[in-house]
Amino acid sequence: MKSVVCSLVVLLCVFRVGASEVVSIGTSTSLTSELLQEDRALMVYLPPSYSGTDKAFPVIYLLDGDVHRFTGFVGVLESLSTDTLGNQVQQAIVVAIPNTHRSRDLTPSTVPEWTFKDRVLDTFAQSGQASRFLTFLQQELFPFIEANYRASNRRLLVGESFGGLFAADVVLQAPTTFDDYLIIDPTALWDNNYLNRTLAGAGERPALDANVFFAFANNAHLGEIGLTNYQWGTTFATAIIRQATGTAEQHYFEHETHGTVAFLAWYNGLRALLSAQN
Amino acid sequence: MKSVVCSLVVLLCVFRVGASEVVSIGTSTSLTSELLQEDRALMVYLPPSYSGTDKAFPVIYLLDGDVHRFTGFVGVLESLSTDTLGNQVQQAIVVAIPNTHRSRDLTPSTVPEWTFKDRVLDTFAQSGQASRFLTFLQQELFPFIEANYRASNRRLLVGESFGGLFAADVVLQAPTTFDDYLIIDPTALWDNNYLNRTLAGAGERPALDANVFFAFANNAHLGEIGLTNYQWGTTFATAIIRQATGTAEQHYFEHETHGTVAFLAWYNGLRALLSAQN
Repeated sequence: MKSVVCSLVVLLCVFRVGASEVVSIGTSTSLTSELLQEDRALMVYLPPSYSGTDKAFPVIYLLDGDVHRFTGFVGVLESLSTDTLGNQVQQAIVVAIPNTHRSRDLTPSTVPEWTFKDRVLDTFAQSGQASRFLTFLQQELFPFIEANYRASNRRLLVGESFGGLFAADVVLQAPTTFDDYLIIDPTALWDNNYLNRTLAGAGERPALDANVFFAFANNAHLGEIGLTNYQWGTTFATAIIRQATGTAEQHYFEHETHGTVAFLAWYNGLRALLSAQN
Repeated sequence: MKSVVCSLVVLLCVFRVGASEVVSIGTSTSLTSELLQEDRALMVYLPPSYSGTDKAFPVIYLLDGDVHRFTGFVGVLESLSTDTLGNQVQQAIVVAIPNTHRSRDLTPSTVPEWTFKDRVLDTFAQSGQASRFLTFLQQELFPFIEANYRASNRRLLVGESFGGLFAADVVLQAPTTFDDYLIIDPTALWDNNYLNRTLAGAGERPALDANVFFAFANNAHLGEIGLTNYQWGTTFATAIIRQATGTAEQHYFEHETHGTVAFLAWYNGLRALLSAQN
């Protein structure tokens, strides 16, 4: 009841002519996960044509979804899916998932000490719980979103760095979970070439009934680490693209680094995967 | 008083743990213009580090500032000025100015029937009031913004198409109004080469003490109109860049058209003009 009163008062404030009104790009909410035994914050963006129609929309799940990334990604999507940039892309719902324990949820194997050629890159108190996080998505988050919003049956996953590693691992372990994968500069260096090792160990795989877009940055300034991450990443992408039956592309952004590539990846990836023509 | 009560209740709603909370990118408000004899809507974005500091921020004035363009532009700026894309750009305030009478406010000369080589491109009930709109900015909008927000003394102008024509005309008529100009695919075709005719008629001009970034699209699909708009636009840009003492660039986006170029123009223009290093 308190929440209903609050909502009414908020509406009254928002629609008072001449007053200051909030420009909203969505709502933040939270979901208590039985599986993860924790509350998970979420931010949900609804597209401009959501209200006033009864249409259902594709849902884009955005990993590492803090408020700045959510704002940036929504900005790209809203520009591309309105007159601003010529309605090139379909309107869609965005569900941003902020991290609680990033290395725990997004990495697919347990690696307390992450090394490359005897050099320690990082150490992690928690890692290797990607499959549990995927189960959370499948069994708790999707039902919550699909019960509360007009979601179509098309799901997209957007992940970068460890998030890209997670998305690539979903392609390996449970490819039909999503219809589209936007995989941005994934951490192919993880666990001594985990992605290609796992792919090689899987034997003959069925055709991949999903669309994939890989974006790679120029990390040559990092030396052998950067070059190897790209080499292993593009080897993996090439193999996956060969298995895909739909849109399947990889792009190398020569003028962007690991820390800057997300933007052009979103821009080009959304145009490729969610084109208004498809 | 009613507004204060409203604000308090909104705050209470927003911070209630577990409830749905609005994700805001700014506030919309309005200003009654004595000069224009109308109410002008505005949307104002404050950067993430605005609260909790007493720092002043550059102010970016965004023409054609409807809610979708505001959302898109803010998304680019927030990504570039936070960890999301490596803090490449300074944080800034954005003031988006939606149109009331677009052709009236953004065109610098009165052209009831706009022609190119005897072909009528468009007709306008109102045009040619750019200098009046500029006076509104200088005498009414800037004081309002600078009285209500912690604005530094740096002002940027972002305009596209007719908005780019307006921005280019400000460079000609009152170049010190802004410190930076991001001019996107301007309508150089306006009024039989208005920009270059005006520049040629101005005689010897002092050095331009401002930064300028011109973005041009590939409009070859429009035939002679598209090619001539580019030719006249780049001739103008080249002359202005020669006069500029600061950052001064022009970029041609071969894979973008008039209707899609804004995004890469914002991305590259903000990195050039508002680099965190400057």
